Amino acid sequence: MQEKGSISIHTENIFPIIKKFLYSDHEIFLRELVSNAVDATQKLKSLGQLGEFKGELGELKVKVSVDKEARTITISDRGLGMTAEEIKKYINQIAFSGATEFVEKYKEKDAAAKDQIIGQFGLGFYSAFMVAKEVEIFSKSYKEDTEGAHWVCDGSTEFSLENTEKADRGTDIVLHVAEDSDEFLEPARLKGILTKYCKFLPIEIEFEGEVINQTAPIWTKQPSELTDEDYVKFYQELYPFSEPPLFWIHLNVDYPFNLTGILYFPKVKDELQFQRNKIQLYSRQVFITDEVKDVVPEFLMLLHGVIDSPDIPLNVSRSFLQADAAVRKINQYITKKVADKLAELFRKDRAGYESKWSDIGLFVKYGMLSDEKFYDKAKDFALVQNVAGKLFTLPEYQEFVQANQKDKNEQTVVLYTTDAEAQHGFVQAAQDRGYDVLELNGPLDSHFIGQLEQKLEKTTFKRVDADTVGKLIEKEETTESVLSDDDTTRLQDVFKVAISNEHMHVQVEALSPQDAPVIITLPEFMRRMKDMQRAGGGGGMQMFGSLPDSYTVSVNANHPVAQRVLKAEGEAGSQLARQAFDLALLAQGLLKGEALTAFVKRSADLLAAE
Amino acid sequence: MQEKGSISIHTENIFPIIKKFLYSDHEIFLRELVSNAVDATQKLKSLGQLGEFKGELGELKVKVSVDKEARTITISDRGLGMTAEEIKKYINQIAFSGATEFVEKYKEKDAAAKDQIIGQFGLGFYSAFMVAKEVEIFSKSYKEDTEGAHWVCDGSTEFSLENTEKADRGTDIVLHVAEDSDEFLEPARLKGILTKYCKFLPIEIEFEGEVINQTAPIWTKQPSELTDEDYVKFYQELYPFSEPPLFWIHLNVDYPFNLTGILYFPKVKDELQFQRNKIQLYSRQVFITDEVKDVVPEFLMLLHGVIDSPDIPLNVSRSFLQADAAVRKINQYITKKVADKLAELFRKDRAGYESKWSDIGLFVKYGMLSDEKFYDKAKDFALVQNVAGKLFTLPEYQEFVQANQKDKNEQTVVLYTTDAEAQHGFVQAAQDRGYDVLELNGPLDSHFIGQLEQKLEKTTFKRVDADTVGKLIEKEETTESVLSDDDTTRLQDVFKVAISNEHMHVQVEALSPQDAPVIITLPEFMRRMKDMQRAGGGGGMQMFGSLPDSYTVSVNANHPVAQRVLKAEGEAGSQLARQAFDLALLAQGLLKGEALTAFVKRSADLLAAE
Repeated sequence: MQEKGSISIHTENIFPIIKKFLYSDHEIFLRELVSNAVDATQKLKSLGQLGEFKGELGELKVKVSVDKEARTITISDRGLGMTAEEIKKYINQIAFSGATEFVEKYKEKDAAAKDQIIGQFGLGFYSAFMVAKEVEIFSKSYKEDTEGAHWVCDGSTEFSLENTEKADRGTDIVLHVAEDSDEFLEPARLKGILTKYCKFLPIEIEFEGEVINQTAPIWTKQPSELTDEDYVKFYQELYPFSEPPLFWIHLNVDYPFNLTGILYFPKVKDELQFQRNKIQLYSRQVFITDEVKDVVPEFLMLLHGVIDSPDIPLNVSRSFLQADAAVRKINQYITKKVADKLAELFRKDRAGYESKWSDIGLFVKYGMLSDEKFYDKAKDFALVQNVAGKLFTLPEYQEFVQANQKDKNEQTVVLYTTDAEAQHGFVQAAQDRGYDVLELNGPLDSHFIGQLEQKLEKTTFKRVDADTVGKLIEKEETTESVLSDDDTTRLQDVFKVAISNEHMHVQVEALSPQDAPVIITLPEFMRRMKDMQRAGGGGGMQMFGSLPDSYTVSVNANHPVAQRVLKAEGEAGSQLARQAFDLALLAQGLLKGEALTAFVKRSADLLAAE
Repeated sequence: MQEKGSISIHTENIFPIIKKFLYSDHEIFLRELVSNAVDATQKLKSLGQLGEFKGELGELKVKVSVDKEARTITISDRGLGMTAEEIKKYINQIAFSGATEFVEKYKEKDAAAKDQIIGQFGLGFYSAFMVAKEVEIFSKSYKEDTEGAHWVCDGSTEFSLENTEKADRGTDIVLHVAEDSDEFLEPARLKGILTKYCKFLPIEIEFEGEVINQTAPIWTKQPSELTDEDYVKFYQELYPFSEPPLFWIHLNVDYPFNLTGILYFPKVKDELQFQRNKIQLYSRQVFITDEVKDVVPEFLMLLHGVIDSPDIPLNVSRSFLQADAAVRKINQYITKKVADKLAELFRKDRAGYESKWSDIGLFVKYGMLSDEKFYDKAKDFALVQNVAGKLFTLPEYQEFVQANQKDKNEQTVVLYTTDAEAQHGFVQAAQDRGYDVLELNGPLDSHFIGQLEQKLEKTTFKRVDADTVGKLIEKEETTESVLSDDDTTRLQDVFKVAISNEHMHVQVEALSPQDAPVIITLPEFMRRMKDMQRAGGGGGMQMFGSLPDSYTVSVNANHPVAQRVLKAEGEAGSQLARQAFDLALLAQGLLKGEALTAFVKRSADLLAAE
């Protein structure tokens, strides 16, 4: 036995399958039916332009209405319409693509028509059965001398079809809503769905006496036709109650893929807002999703706006999307356009660019960290800011500090603070020494520092409290100690006993008499390891988790307090050392809880007694 | 014209539709094909038990193999097998449910068999075409005297079918992998998919010489057969590298829905872990998803474990899931089981329950806040902890504080701290007065406080730094001031000038001489409004956003420092007031940046000069 044949489909089971698999969101039915109506209307307009339809187009609105009493939703258009024969062909035979045939027929006459077809006619229509127990079609073709047709199907595979009187050209789809879909009889719900999916469809859509869409959204226009106000106005339509965007990029490419859209750099107040306003993805002006992962580079997911492309495969798996060549190219194109726009802003208006830096810095750094190509472009327009608020490019900053901040090994040491307020004492000590201090307190800055140390030659970064100011940048000259070796040892012992904490490593150092009597520092390497561990850095970092912070306590041999401690008898010296140590803890933000309460109480008593 | 007819489906378009709509994740093909193989094997076992199949069952493993050279994946079983006629019926006619027919035929003999059928035979098989350009079936029925059959289809709707030699009973499905699906030729990828979806299927599945599944996972057993070790071991199989769970709940219900599973209360170190280990949803031991939203009450999404139920509708829209009666009942059942388990733990082993409270408190509070029914059960086993570490139920705590913490209006005032370290001075002052202080520093505690104030009668909550300790709980007795009205006014003026900050409202108060010379407080109402605003509370809360913190500065008329300030001449008095104010700022954690650096410097100079 050997036989060949065709796979057949048992239609009695098709409706449950459509319900189950066609779309995971039932509300999509309205998008599909309105898109079909818009489609039929645009096709008629095309035929008019081609001279195939010579009648009056008249008003071409698509109308959506709901009758809660009768439990119906009606979608009406004045487009092509269908004869009974066409209904048999396009509706009764599922998955026969009406759109394909239309395009085949006219492709030689008008190549552009192809771009105006949305989806597959047949399947989209059947999504009506996700919410309706019975669907009726009333239709009349644009062709002269044709009769109206009336089709009814109750969700089984049986249909009935008869001729009927219909005054006007076009199609009315009437949905008799099923009991489990009551929600779709609420006008507010329908309006919500229309606003979500159909806000920018190219034919006017009327619901409850009101046109709900803009037929020519600005991304379909040429940048030369548009003013700044147009862009800002559109942004505020997309994201009401948002602050105006910083700037925007109008995307427009035909080859090797088709894509239009506008990406906005937002002015955001906090991270919560990042989540809320997502980039919207359209396919020929129909809203598809706001999940644009893989289409937009990850570091630009924080941007806002719209992307419209028929070349992005919809409804396919994540892994497929990642592998898709068109998607990869779109992704690269967007990255390049963003880098070019930033470079242009920087070049044309440095002051304006600087004023926006606090908002765009995060995007730029994220991009530099995640995309080597973007780093290469951005390294000339990425900025760093010092605690005085002055902004520099990376080359400018290297130039700025290199005279004063080279150590004895010719390494440029860049000093930074992660919190200018909490580390104020250390910042001031560095500034008093003539050093400049950068403010690097963003969420990505610890990674950014790591990247810059790899990329910039002979440059290291140190936080201002990583060491006493004299040793942050090691020079040839050193300060002499006024203490004998004997006194140094004695001083160290008094402090060790007074502090008695194994994580506080006491050492006596010859600092300037103007420096504090005691300074507590946390070595750069140790702090970075702990930061990494806290951030959940995996691998071998685990071992640092159990390590307590390990501080260096530098006792200033040249401060008058050192002399007083050495001269004091017994307990008095220890108390003096303890008080000086408490002040150092205070300057490092480490005096807390019971110790702070005791310090405050002791100081108040002193104040009362003096 | 009036006609009736049947909707037909043009099969030439069915494959693109299957690829596009059947599943959004292509990897699902392997789950479907292995499930089918397991299904066919279980059916044969059922037939054996029913006496319909009298042959040897032999080894019943399902084998999966991959040949990278030949670009094939093969799934083999020794189950029912199919004759050429059956292939025509079940494979060539899409959407004809083989499973349905099997159940129909045997339902009277064995009702339980119904529960063992997974999915719809036909559609699942066709998911093979998501990754294969050609699919072959080699099959031989379990029935005696039947020939083997060989079916080939290249992804068009044309198939060929012929008799063939096949030694053994059962079915081999051979997938010729398409170019765009190379990833599925990687053994590691296949093993990953098998481990994800098939880890607990009830028939052994072999891949590369290794059985990858447990055929009888513990949730399918009776709790009486299981030890604590079994539960902990299974937990660590599900979530390797996790700490052992605190306890668990074995779910097992037949009516009005079918559901088994085990929910674990995890020991979690941080919020990141909450995200990672999700509850897994199975349908008859096949992994479906770890998106269990709506099935599990939101406040229990933080739990871990598995839920297995054939009654949860899969692949349907979110809004449908929410409205589904079975899902609602499952949700309520899980809530009730969790509340019962917690009540039992509390009753049977109070000490053990208390030791777990720091881990389960968040779940319980979340549940109380989001589910009124859960609140009613949990109000007797929810605990609060005071700063000394002692735990109380809500009724116990009311009893504990009511003698001492009733104000003059018979309101019980519960005192709490959100940070016992930062608010240490205030906590100590309250304790010195004989009050108890709760530690309420969890992410939900501000909402929990609000709920308790609504639910508990005549009870209000105040943070320890909401007022000076004498006024936190207003009593009839008051402290007398030692100052004349004149001195009071003069003292207030000196402090006003020294502080000169419009957000610091200075008032002179008659406090105890043991209290601090100056105390800075933030009124409870004002702080709550600001907290709410910071948490992004919408609506009318916006107005508080622009308000700066507004503090009350209480100058202690009875502290010796007040006398010194009044006696001091000119600038000296102002300096003294400023130093006392700085100490109060320090106690409130408000002395920062430049002001702190100056304070430290000034104090160090004093230390050197004394």
